[in-house]
Amino acid sequence: MPPIVLLTDFGTQDHYAGVVKGVILSIQPQVPIVDLSHAVPPYEVAAAQFLLGQALPYFPAGTVYLVIVDPGVGSARRPIALRTPAGVAVGPDNGVLQPLFPQLQEVVQLCNPTYWRTPSPSHTFHGRDIFAPVAAHICRGVPLAELGTPLDPATLVNQPLPSPLATPSGWRGHIQYIDHFGNLISTIPADHVPWDRIQGILCAGAIIPWGTHYGAVPVGHLVALPGSHGYVEIACHQGHAAQRLGARIGEVVEVQVRSG
Amino acid sequence: MPPIVLLTDFGTQDHYAGVVKGVILSIQPQVPIVDLSHAVPPYEVAAAQFLLGQALPYFPAGTVYLVIVDPGVGSARRPIALRTPAGVAVGPDNGVLQPLFPQLQEVVQLCNPTYWRTPSPSHTFHGRDIFAPVAAHICRGVPLAELGTPLDPATLVNQPLPSPLATPSGWRGHIQYIDHFGNLISTIPADHVPWDRIQGILCAGAIIPWGTHYGAVPVGHLVALPGSHGYVEIACHQGHAAQRLGARIGEVVEVQVRSG
Amino acid sequence: MPPIVLLTDFGTQDHYAGVVKGVILSIQPQVPIVDLSHAVPPYEVAAAQFLLGQALPYFPAGTVYLVIVDPGVGSARRPIALRTPAGVAVGPDNGVLQPLFPQLQEVVQLCNPTYWRTPSPSHTFHGRDIFAPVAAHICRGVPLAELGTPLDPATLVNQPLPSPLATPSGWRGHIQYIDHFGNLISTIPADHVPWDRIQGILCAGAIIPWGTHYGAVPVGHLVALPGSHGYVEIACHQGHAAQRLGARIGEVVEVQVRSG
Repeated sequence: MPPIVLLTDFGTQDHYAGVVKGVILSIQPQVPIVDLSHAVPPYEVAAAQFLLGQALPYFPAGTVYLVIVDPGVGSARRPIALRTPAGVAVGPDNGVLQPLFPQLQEVVQLCNPTYWRTPSPSHTFHGRDIFAPVAAHICRGVPLAELGTPLDPATLVNQPLPSPLATPSGWRGHIQYIDHFGNLISTIPADHVPWDRIQGILCAGAIIPWGTHYGAVPVGHLVALPGSHGYVEIACHQGHAAQRLGARIGEVVEVQVRSG
Repeated sequence: MPPIVLLTDFGTQDHYAGVVKGVILSIQPQVPIVDLSHAVPPYEVAAAQFLLGQALPYFPAGTVYLVIVDPGVGSARRPIALRTPAGVAVGPDNGVLQPLFPQLQEVVQLCNPTYWRTPSPSHTFHGRDIFAPVAAHICRGVPLAELGTPLDPATLVNQPLPSPLATPSGWRGHIQYIDHFGNLISTIPADHVPWDRIQGILCAGAIIPWGTHYGAVPVGHLVALPGSHGYVEIACHQGHAAQRLGARIGEVVEVQVRSG
Repeated sequence: MPPIVLLTDFGTQDHYAGVVKGVILSIQPQVPIVDLSHAVPPYEVAAAQFLLGQALPYFPAGTVYLVIVDPGVGSARRPIALRTPAGVAVGPDNGVLQPLFPQLQEVVQLCNPTYWRTPSPSHTFHGRDIFAPVAAHICRGVPLAELGTPLDPATLVNQPLPSPLATPSGWRGHIQYIDHFGNLISTIPADHVPWDRIQGILCAGAIIPWGTHYGAVPVGHLVALPGSHGYVEIACHQGHAAQRLGARIGEVVEVQVRSG
């Protein structure tokens, strides 16, 4: 039985993540539940997109992704479930499931309360009352068509990441994510960059040396490298690059390349 | 096999929660273990009561709740286990298991070292040495009567939450919990409040508008609503109500109602 | 099936720990995965050693320990796997697996890419690309000899903790770990200390009273006691000893004893 993977902004201090697991286990007692993260910054749909996109290639086919970053809970935003070859995802229609859109096979609006915890869900915790029970029923084999009515994929809220730009001298992108080590992950795909012809990498007013791994520079020094995420990453060897550079999400990154 | 649910103030930085899981899996290898929270503020019995009470309705019957918020560890406070229709709970007799008291069927003082990890438990980590092994043996089917001697429920330490007061113009309660979103959860049951006849909701010197969901007010505005917990909740749409109001646990909340 | 125990400095905010679990479950779907800690301070090999040493006695024999605190990832440091009666451990050869060295039965350098996620691992995330798949294959029964070439244990990076010193009047050690309660764990084994003949315990300029449990002193007072870790521990009853004393890791602790 493939796992249910949880990605939320619930934190782990309160009962919210635990309650979601209780609801799941009440319906499907044996399913493995994996925490991808509960520390998405509250309401930050873009950060959740990044984490979901990073996780997708590494879980078994058939995994059920339960993504609850839902600032519009209780409003008119639609609860949805969708199917791709990588697995099934359940969450709000606010763009948070966007990493799965390129391989979309089927998407429904969740409107069949038979598969909810209650026909009168709360207005503030659809994770508990709609999304978690639906995810558990999907694990039990309930087909998406049972859970609601088909949606036209063209109507889904879609907030793709701004693409990096090719410039006359290389690439210009921005920082899309900062991890807990302080590593800055840019939007520039590492395999777009001819690493043997780099002239300079610029970010937050600094010129960053480049290498293949953190230890390519002395401890405490900055280094740009092809990150494990597949993007150009700016790190500080055994340090915190974001603090060193005073850089935030959205900061511009430029890679300048010698003509080949 | 129903899960063991862990609720502690151990944090997740140290080895304490992991060691408790190791002890459980050494006795009952296949039991699912669910973290409700390990971030109860150290020694805060009332916060643990709130989280336990919130979780109880959502886990399968037969769940074993292992609750270790235990400022009196090593002193004369009694280690106990109790049974209700909702499940079994194991922890110290300091009031932390109070949400299960209304449905109590059986309670024992844990005094049979056969089911401990060692007959000479440490004075500072009964979670590892007494509570976790007892919880695992309960999952294996050991009856409570084997684990110790029956207790008179009237002797249990009982710290129920102060009830909200009916006032001439409505209800007066207080903030019992603040979650990681900064939402303020009061002690006033949401279904005590005639929401169509509210005149005003007051907290921390502010008059709070009310609605049914967070999006009933613009982003950044305060709103009072019937929370998913079943209590009147004060939130800030995509913001942090506790910081906005400078409110803490214990802060008074008043709901004023027009005569119907 | 014994569990895989994870000990990393990945934090739980990012996707790193979740991705490691996805890789494991893709290879060995039913294995229980236990988080020991993902909050090792980044790159702090000594803290990881302490946590691993604390966990070892409490997990079932055959447990697989996956330890990824790896400041040298991508450099010449060797990826290894080792076997002891307590279980198998996988991680970098930087001293982090030292608590298992005294019982070492077999150790190999991981150099067979058949058991990696890819023959071309990233230079920054060996946890995902080498260590996690190797751990999962070990759970499937792959012998260590398949995973790489035997290493001479004498060549392993070894950073044992400095031992406490016997002084004319007792013992001198230092603080090796501070937990999230603020308890200070020293390097002095509690059973080296004749507790009935203590004259004084000194740390950070203070003289600390001693007892057997936290409640031996009033709330808010400091107390030294035989900790659950097996070492002399300095705590503050329902308080935070590290903040009270301004003490850090490395701080000297002296136990002075009357002649017996």
